[in-house]
Amino acid sequence: MGDKPLWEQIGAGFVQLYYQQFDTDRVKLADLYYDDCFMTFEGTTVRGKNDVMAKLNSLPFRSIQHIITAQDHHPTPDNCVMSMVMGQLKADQDQVMGFQQVFLLKNIGNKWLCTNEMFRLSLHNFA
Amino acid sequence: MGDKPLWEQIGAGFVQLYYQQFDTDRVKLADLYYDDCFMTFEGTTVRGKNDVMAKLNSLPFRSIQHIITAQDHHPTPDNCVMSMVMGQLKADQDQVMGFQQVFLLKNIGNKWLCTNEMFRLSLHNFA
Repeated sequence: MGDKPLWEQIGAGFVQLYYQQFDTDRVKLADLYYDDCFMTFEGTTVRGKNDVMAKLNSLPFRSIQHIITAQDHHPTPDNCVMSMVMGQLKADQDQVMGFQQVFLLKNIGNKWLCTNEMFRLSLHNFA
Repeated sequence: MGDKPLWEQIGAGFVQLYYQQFDTDRVKLADLYYDDCFMTFEGTTVRGKNDVMAKLNSLPFRSIQHIITAQDHHPTPDNCVMSMVMGQLKADQDQVMGFQQVFLLKNIGNKWLCTNEMFRLSLHNFA
């Protein structure tokens, strides 16, 4: 991984950690969010780490597995990292669904935190 | 549209203009990009407005139509606007394909310009 651009290492590292935490113990995701973050989940927007965690913890499945099929990472003019993910997820015994997700990451207090996140299931795209 | 947050008006306005230009005369998209922008198209990254336009103009279809099925917009801590789009496109006589795209917009010289863009066809997600 040493020969990849720094922003790609940062973005890919965040993405790996995010889905690993999400799939094993999503309460721990709180460590990855900026206090005044924005998150839009299936078109519903919440603001602030506490509300984001309340939203994530309210999701009704008991178990979930994410698989990443593609990811892209960029540096931004304000020294952030933007990451777009395409993947598939399986919640409980539901059928596998595609999803798309984007993260904006900012270095705050020497940690890369998510300031903005958007999530949509791909199935809307084929309705 | 007056009762929507400013960032949503900015993002939705940009998205509408972007696809309208793309579908009618994509040479004009140059006006929408920051000089030192990054664009990743199907996993291939180019940097700078000139290289982005060269990439867009090299795409092999003659006609294209985009339909947006969902879009989300956020303000970011650095006063940018992040927009995620899910949609469908039809290029020439090819079958309709789903896509996902993200834009980061920054106000530069009193214009909202795209500093970062990522595009992927959704079909990768079902391979």
